[in-house]
Amino acid sequence: MDERLKKQLDFALEADKEKNIFRQTHLSGHGRNENDAEHAWHMALMAYLLREYANEPVDITKVMLMCLIHDVVEIDAGDTYAYDAEGLKTQQEREDKAKERIFSLLPDDQKQELVALFDEFEDYETPESRYAHAMDNLQPLLLNNSNDGSDWLEHGVTKDQVYGRQNKTRLGSEKLFEEVTDRLIREHIEKGNIKE
Amino acid sequence: MDERLKKQLDFALEADKEKNIFRQTHLSGHGRNENDAEHAWHMALMAYLLREYANEPVDITKVMLMCLIHDVVEIDAGDTYAYDAEGLKTQQEREDKAKERIFSLLPDDQKQELVALFDEFEDYETPESRYAHAMDNLQPLLLNNSNDGSDWLEHGVTKDQVYGRQNKTRLGSEKLFEEVTDRLIREHIEKGNIKE
Repeated sequence: MDERLKKQLDFALEADKEKNIFRQTHLSGHGRNENDAEHAWHMALMAYLLREYANEPVDITKVMLMCLIHDVVEIDAGDTYAYDAEGLKTQQEREDKAKERIFSLLPDDQKQELVALFDEFEDYETPESRYAHAMDNLQPLLLNNSNDGSDWLEHGVTKDQVYGRQNKTRLGSEKLFEEVTDRLIREHIEKGNIKE
Repeated sequence: MDERLKKQLDFALEADKEKNIFRQTHLSGHGRNENDAEHAWHMALMAYLLREYANEPVDITKVMLMCLIHDVVEIDAGDTYAYDAEGLKTQQEREDKAKERIFSLLPDDQKQELVALFDEFEDYETPESRYAHAMDNLQPLLLNNSNDGSDWLEHGVTKDQVYGRQNKTRLGSEKLFEEVTDRLIREHIEKGNIKE
């Protein structure tokens, strides 16, 4: 087999490990914890279906790709819960190492392309990145809401913590922030699922 | 919330159920069975990375979307194993009903769009469909190969059955068929993992 194809398949097989990285979010119906591959699939699908609500026009192929690969580094670095202050301190270093190792499995041109896309997502500076992040926030919110906010309750999450993260949805989509995110958060504060 | 957005979110939440539909394929490292959402994510990612090997130029956004949604009907219809002759007899009817119910959760324009995309995938007539099917075959082949062909062994699958399905990879990508599919199948026949 030629070297280029072999590298591409090596990366594809390595990516399989994302299915073993579990998040704090639970599947709807009070199911088991969700894994990174499932989350990425769900985000990419939602990104396509909700693209009319992005604040700015987006290259939807790029957004979908960002969604598909944005958690690949967690194969080595593990999932860092959005409200885990200790884990967040070392997250950058762990993820940088993982990014180098995992994307280096690819042929060099594809490594460069995917690293650039990964960095663009992380940097929050393009319309695609901001909209993809809105999906990264909205997808678990939707599941957590369907489970009566049990992920927030389990971790004793506060209003400030939730808004600290979810406010950024506004950067990608004002409409989704106003009509979904903010409305749901207020409901769950009222019900006591999110602490004041 | 406006009716259109509500419908889109209802569909997004319904799609979550794909994470509970398990396939016969096992994750690499002799892991658990894979589910439809993970399979779709993996296929979409592979489709992008391997697009240079498609026989004909493809609209990669369309291919990725096909990959993401091609198993949504299994939420109602269940997974039908590629070599389950009895299940295959009723598959069409079960999946048609599911398609109507599930895509009807969406606003009408998006229902029409996704049903058309789903049907295009099933019909095997466009370059995008043929290449997406190549991914639908290659992705589990890659996992099964990494597990020493244990999925074939478990089901006593024959050479004719494997080629009956995997030969179609050639329609989407001659290169991937020759260099990966055919080579791996021949190796596993030789090792006795696929029956002559």
